[in-house]
Amino acid sequence: MSDLFLPDGFAATGWRIGVKETNLSKEDFGVLFSERPATAHAIFTRNRFPGHPVTIGRRHIQSGRTRCIIVNSGNANVANGPDGLALAEASCRAVAQALHIAADEVLPSSTGVIGRPMPAEKVLAACAEIPERLRNPDVQLFVRAIMTTDRFAKNRALRSSRGFSVTGLAKGAGMIEPNMATMLSYMLTDARIGIADLRRWLPFLASRSFNRISVDSDTSTSDTFAFLANGASGVDVEIREQDIVALQRLTIEEGMELLDLLSVRDFPVSASHMLRQRLECDDVSGDFMAASMQIALFLAREIVRDGEGATRRFRVIIQGAATSDQAARIGRSILNSPLVKTAVTGADPNWGRLIMAVGKVFDESHPDPQIWVGPYRMYPPENSASLAELEAEMRKPDVDLRVDLRAGKAWEVFYGCDLTCDYVKLNSEYTT
Amino acid sequence: MSDLFLPDGFAATGWRIGVKETNLSKEDFGVLFSERPATAHAIFTRNRFPGHPVTIGRRHIQSGRTRCIIVNSGNANVANGPDGLALAEASCRAVAQALHIAADEVLPSSTGVIGRPMPAEKVLAACAEIPERLRNPDVQLFVRAIMTTDRFAKNRALRSSRGFSVTGLAKGAGMIEPNMATMLSYMLTDARIGIADLRRWLPFLASRSFNRISVDSDTSTSDTFAFLANGASGVDVEIREQDIVALQRLTIEEGMELLDLLSVRDFPVSASHMLRQRLECDDVSGDFMAASMQIALFLAREIVRDGEGATRRFRVIIQGAATSDQAARIGRSILNSPLVKTAVTGADPNWGRLIMAVGKVFDESHPDPQIWVGPYRMYPPENSASLAELEAEMRKPDVDLRVDLRAGKAWEVFYGCDLTCDYVKLNSEYTT
Repeated sequence: MSDLFLPDGFAATGWRIGVKETNLSKEDFGVLFSERPATAHAIFTRNRFPGHPVTIGRRHIQSGRTRCIIVNSGNANVANGPDGLALAEASCRAVAQALHIAADEVLPSSTGVIGRPMPAEKVLAACAEIPERLRNPDVQLFVRAIMTTDRFAKNRALRSSRGFSVTGLAKGAGMIEPNMATMLSYMLTDARIGIADLRRWLPFLASRSFNRISVDSDTSTSDTFAFLANGASGVDVEIREQDIVALQRLTIEEGMELLDLLSVRDFPVSASHMLRQRLECDDVSGDFMAASMQIALFLAREIVRDGEGATRRFRVIIQGAATSDQAARIGRSILNSPLVKTAVTGADPNWGRLIMAVGKVFDESHPDPQIWVGPYRMYPPENSASLAELEAEMRKPDVDLRVDLRAGKAWEVFYGCDLTCDYVKLNSEYTT
Repeated sequence: MSDLFLPDGFAATGWRIGVKETNLSKEDFGVLFSERPATAHAIFTRNRFPGHPVTIGRRHIQSGRTRCIIVNSGNANVANGPDGLALAEASCRAVAQALHIAADEVLPSSTGVIGRPMPAEKVLAACAEIPERLRNPDVQLFVRAIMTTDRFAKNRALRSSRGFSVTGLAKGAGMIEPNMATMLSYMLTDARIGIADLRRWLPFLASRSFNRISVDSDTSTSDTFAFLANGASGVDVEIREQDIVALQRLTIEEGMELLDLLSVRDFPVSASHMLRQRLECDDVSGDFMAASMQIALFLAREIVRDGEGATRRFRVIIQGAATSDQAARIGRSILNSPLVKTAVTGADPNWGRLIMAVGKVFDESHPDPQIWVGPYRMYPPENSASLAELEAEMRKPDVDLRVDLRAGKAWEVFYGCDLTCDYVKLNSEYTT
C-alpha cells in the first residue's frame, strides 16, 4: 500500500540472502529496528513444537524491551535440533553486536519449510550487515521479505491527531502451511506505554483479532504477534486493568457497534470517541486503543481473505451464550466445520449444517438456538425471506452468520473463509 | 455382496414409499425384524440436536429389547418440531400394532435432509404394510433402502463353527452430509446374550470401530449403532466385566497382532483363538467377540473408504501415550487435520504436518515423539529410507502413519481418509 509508513523512530528494510535456492528475485530477510529503546510484548504459537526462533523469542521478550526484529522466509527453522536453536541464539547475538544493543532486545522469526537445515553462514552474515542496510530503509522491502504464499501484503498505518502513530505489518495465508507459511504480525507505535500496560493490552487485542480467525484449523509452529512502543512521539498511553474489564463487559449490542465503528478505512475517530465515553479514559489512550484494535482486526481479516484457496470470508457471531467459553467452543465448531465452509463456498443457506455444528459441541440439555444469515432468521424457519434472498446473503464477499444460543449474555465473534478445491490443490500437489 | 445372510430368526426387506420425490427407482424404507424377542442395545449420536427418531430410540432402547428396526432414507426427520417427534412415536406404535409387539421394541431411524417436513401418511402406511412385506423378505432390498450418498453397500456376515452367526449392515459416507447422509449401523446375532453383557460389549466395540473413524470431523444428528441378539441358535455368549478390562489392557504389540488377525475376509479363527487365550473365556464367547469386532471394524473402515470424495484411507496409530485420552486427542488431531489429509491426497511424506498436528494438542512439556510411515521412521530423520520409498508408502491405498509419543504405554488406532476436490465439490455444489 502506498500510504504505509512507520511511526517515528522506527526503520525497516529487507533484502535477499538466499535462504531458499528458488524464487531468486524475492527478498527473504527483513529487519525492523527502533532507534531508541522500546517497550515490547509478544504472543507466540501454542503449538508444542515451536520453531527455534520462538523458543528464543519467548526468553527475550521477558525483558519487556525489543529494539530489533529479524525475520527470514523460506525456512521455518523448526525441528532442526541443537543446531537450529544455536543459530537462532547466535543470530540475536550477531544483531546485538552489530547494532550495539542487548541480545535480549532482539526478536527472531523464521517462516518456511519445517525440518530443513538453515544456511547458518548466510543468516549470520546478514545480521552483521544490518547497520549498513538500515542506512537506506525501505519498509516495502521488509513487507516483501516476510511474505511466503501470501497473495498480497497486509499492512496498515494510522496517525492520530493526538500526535502519535500505529503501524501493523503482517503475513500469513493459512493458520499453517508447513511448506512455506505461518502467521507473523508486528505492530509498532511511537506512543509511550508502560510494560505492564502493554502486557495487559496485547492478550486482549489478540483475543479480539488474531485469536478469532481460522483458515484451516491448523496451528503453525511459528506464529508470532509482537507489539513495540518506542515513545518517540512523547505522547503517553495508559491501559488500565479496569479498561480491559470494561471492554470484556461490553454487551453484544455495544460490541457490534464498536466493530462497525472500527470497520472504517481512516482513523477510527468514532470508535475512539465511544471507547473514551465507556472507559472514561483519556483522549490519547482512547485513540491508541481504537487504532490498534482497528489495525489488528484489519490484519487478521486480511489473513483470512488471503486464506489458501479462499474466495469468500464469513463472520460467525455467537450471542446469548451462557459463558464466553461456550460461545468460543461453538464459534470454533462452526468456523472449522468443513460442511459449513463448503456451504459458504456454494452460497448455500444450509442451516442444517449450522445446527449440526452447534449441536456437536453444545452443552445445554435443552438447546433452543436461533440461526440467522445477515438480517434473516433461517432457524426456526419463519419464511420472512425467500430462498433467493437467503442465497443472496450467502453470496456476499463477507457472509454474516449469527447464532443466538438463548442461554445467557456472553458473546464472541470469529472470522473464517470458505473451503475450495484450490485449498486442496495447494496443499496436496506440493511434494517434499 | 452375494454372501450376505441374516442370522436365524431375522428377516429384512425394503421398498419405495416416496419419501423423496426424486430418485424414483430407489427403495427408501427398510425394515429389520426378529421373529422372537431379542436383547438389544444401541448407541446414538452425541450431537445435541439429535433427530426425532434418535430421541425415541434412546427411550425405547432402555427396555433392553428390540424386535423391529425401521429406517427411511431421504429425510432425516431432524429439527421438525413437535410434528417430527410425534411422527417418530406414531411410527413405532403403528409397527407395534401391525406386528403385535410392544412399541418400545421398535427402533426408528431416519437419514436424509434436515429440517424438511416428513410425508407422515406415507410413513404410517408403510408401517402398517410391514407384515405383508415381510412375507417375502430380501435383505438386499433393506441394504438398498438405507443407502443415501453411499457409493457401495457395506455389510458382512460370518458363521461360527460353534453354531451361531453375526451379521453387520451399515450405511454412511461422511460423519454427516446433512443433505442426505449419516452413519447407521445394525448388527444382529442369533447367539443368546444377556442384556448386561450386551450393554458392556457395545460401547467397547464402538470405541474400537465406529468411534475411531472420521471423514470430515462433523457429527451427524442421526448416527445410530444398534446390536440385536435373538438367541435363535440356542448358543450362549458371555461378556464379563473382566473381558473388557483385559481387552483394554492389551499392549500395543498385542493390539496390533489382534488387528492383524481380524483383518481377514473369512471367520477370524486365529483372532478368536488369541482372545480365548488372553481372556480365558469359552469358545463361543471368543468366537462372538472376534466375529463382532471383525465386522464392526470392517464396516467402520468401509465407511471411511466410501468417505465423500475419498481416494485413499489412512490409519493413525498412536502409541507410547501417557493416557488413552492423550492418545485419542492426538490421534483425532492428526485424523482431522486438513493439512495431513491433503498430504495423504498428494502422497507427500510431509512429517512437518504431522509434527504440527501432534504439537497442536500435545500436553507434555518436553515432547520427544517419533513419527513413522509404514516401516520407515520419518522423524527424527534417520535417512534409512529414500524419499522414493517414503512416497511409495504414502501412495498405498491404506497408508499407515504411526506416532510414538514416548511418554507412556497407552495407545489408540484411528481411521481416516484423504481430502479431495471431490469432497469440496460434493458439499458445495448442492443447493438447498
